[in-house]
Amino acid sequence: MTIVPDRTLPETLPTSAEIFDAHRGGKLSTGLTAPLGNARDLAVAYTPGVAEVSRAIAADRTAAARWTWADRLVAVVSDGTAVLGLGDIGPRAALPVMEGKSALFKAFGGLNSIPIVLDTTDVDEIVETMVRLRPSFGAVNLEDVSAPRCFELERRLIEALDCPVMHDDQHGTAIVLLAALRGAAAVQDRPIAGLRVVISGAGAAGVACARILLAAGVRDVVVLDSRGVLDAHRGGEKALLAVESNPRGVTGGIAEALTGADVFVGLSSAQLPEALLARMAPEAIVFALSNPDPEVHPDVAARHAAIVATGRSDFPNQINNVLAFPGVFRGALDAGARRITEAMKLAAAEAIFAVARDDLAADRIVPSPFDPRVAPAVSQAVSDASDERPDSE
Amino acid sequence: MTIVPDRTLPETLPTSAEIFDAHRGGKLSTGLTAPLGNARDLAVAYTPGVAEVSRAIAADRTAAARWTWADRLVAVVSDGTAVLGLGDIGPRAALPVMEGKSALFKAFGGLNSIPIVLDTTDVDEIVETMVRLRPSFGAVNLEDVSAPRCFELERRLIEALDCPVMHDDQHGTAIVLLAALRGAAAVQDRPIAGLRVVISGAGAAGVACARILLAAGVRDVVVLDSRGVLDAHRGGEKALLAVESNPRGVTGGIAEALTGADVFVGLSSAQLPEALLARMAPEAIVFALSNPDPEVHPDVAARHAAIVATGRSDFPNQINNVLAFPGVFRGALDAGARRITEAMKLAAAEAIFAVARDDLAADRIVPSPFDPRVAPAVSQAVSDASDERPDSE
Repeated sequence: MTIVPDRTLPETLPTSAEIFDAHRGGKLSTGLTAPLGNARDLAVAYTPGVAEVSRAIAADRTAAARWTWADRLVAVVSDGTAVLGLGDIGPRAALPVMEGKSALFKAFGGLNSIPIVLDTTDVDEIVETMVRLRPSFGAVNLEDVSAPRCFELERRLIEALDCPVMHDDQHGTAIVLLAALRGAAAVQDRPIAGLRVVISGAGAAGVACARILLAAGVRDVVVLDSRGVLDAHRGGEKALLAVESNPRGVTGGIAEALTGADVFVGLSSAQLPEALLARMAPEAIVFALSNPDPEVHPDVAARHAAIVATGRSDFPNQINNVLAFPGVFRGALDAGARRITEAMKLAAAEAIFAVARDDLAADRIVPSPFDPRVAPAVSQAVSDASDERPDSE
Repeated sequence: MTIVPDRTLPETLPTSAEIFDAHRGGKLSTGLTAPLGNARDLAVAYTPGVAEVSRAIAADRTAAARWTWADRLVAVVSDGTAVLGLGDIGPRAALPVMEGKSALFKAFGGLNSIPIVLDTTDVDEIVETMVRLRPSFGAVNLEDVSAPRCFELERRLIEALDCPVMHDDQHGTAIVLLAALRGAAAVQDRPIAGLRVVISGAGAAGVACARILLAAGVRDVVVLDSRGVLDAHRGGEKALLAVESNPRGVTGGIAEALTGADVFVGLSSAQLPEALLARMAPEAIVFALSNPDPEVHPDVAARHAAIVATGRSDFPNQINNVLAFPGVFRGALDAGARRITEAMKLAAAEAIFAVARDDLAADRIVPSPFDPRVAPAVSQAVSDASDERPDSE
């Protein structure tokens, strides 16, 4: 499919009738790479011809990468415990989202992808299931799994499966956020290293965003959850993050954190009162990413901030994961990489920023999701950042 | 895809180069049912639009059947333990066969289908895995699982999953065999009930073929495995079958069984010496179905038999499962059936025979696999034979 570059915003959101009509029978289909129209086609693709291919793989299992679709097939995997902002609605209700994700992999990354929704929320069982399915796919995009389970699940899948695994709600979001911050800082002609950043939300996305900003050289990151600024008394990932971030030792709530801050990153559904925004430093950057309702309306944010971004397609500066994941997986698979490393994620963010840099402005800090340069640039950067090269045939 | 009717046989078998070339990167792809080319498309198929669909399914999980692809998606499932005639070559080497099967579901049945190859051969684990994956698909075509495990696995999957499950090596083969026998008997103008049938091979296909012939009214069926005619001292399915078949109490080996027999059905790789064929009754019917090497060459069989069929595409009367499984699954899914019943299998065989009847001859006892009338006729017959009707929307 050709993606037409499109910077125009949709004038109205689609109607329910339009949405359901587009979902009737699902959004995906399977197809054949060659016709099966006569006896010869059948003899090539099925018996007796296929036996030669099976024999070749039986003799050398790495040959499956060449003669089947599995090696470049992305499984979009969810247990339905944290679907969009809807919460734990189960695997069946999660499926339309996963089908959409698989469709995006095809449209933006040129990758085959199937949704796998699981009727278990037990981390052990999910890992065990994916290990048993391993010969069926080539990469795993983990999606909409609730925190803190998602951290353990991703870590264990990466250990158990010798293929690229990425929880997109963590790392896809983090990659695009870093790209957007690079864009915003470039518009303002200041380095990101000196920015004071506040992240509201310490779920999957909040933790990953904090980590990628620290990895990219941002020193002052303060992360809050619903109980306030993280400290070492929190459990699991939050305690670790509290130790690694917040070098000034800020305590308290969002009011304390925002005082004098340069950047607000909203990744929770908590609304942000306008009075708190007024506490930020001059030339503030506000990323209100909660979907579909941003933490603060962009028009309100604009009264106090120099640059405003949201996750929505009907305002400028849309911070959308689709800028990252198709190219990240494509690049990892092109390179034959077994892991998606921190270096590959940083390279992906840099590639997105590099595309935006050609045409940078306060309302164009990231490329449009439909900019056809993005996925190839990300893919190439991720592939280049991979240490592993594919075996030559 | 349009299937062109084609009764011509391939003049030569495809070359290795041709076969491998057609398999590069696999035989399947995924596609989108609607374009994703602009912000409005994205708002319909992904966020924020998809949230409405997810909410609708969260409120009523049966709605997933309408708004996702899963309800009509056939999973082609194998553990790679009995692949074609190649044996236990494992899931990766089985994958090209399963991709071919999925391609046939699309080309002949218009059904989306994905291959699931499993890195476990433990029946408990396979059942458990498919139960966890249940929300991801709508039917299971079990394929190339070794006997006798396949009998237990199919039975347990039927119990555990509320959707159509069929082991094609058993029932697809049995359906087409019954259709072919109906065709052959019609050419000879004699009823099938009075035929003496010998089945060589008591694996998945042999057992299922014996059972469907008995269910269709054939009374005299003698089944042999490598140790000779089955008796009640065999284990499992074989002992059960020994009791239900062989009413004359034939004992011994293939020579004893074939003496005076009307029909030979070869479903093992054991070669059949010409001298034994000479023991059969006049007007004998020989189905030498072992692939790619029939139990007896069709030209040799023709010296002693009035009607000869094989599984090969380069001889007349090809007994090929593709005549059955696309229409069987399509009909079951169209009807919203939760089981594929014996009545549905018998109806499928009758529908295949009905298509052949228009143009019946000793070398045309079954339709061509590319006869475009077959799948719709089978689908309609199976759907009609189902007791369950789909819920109206």
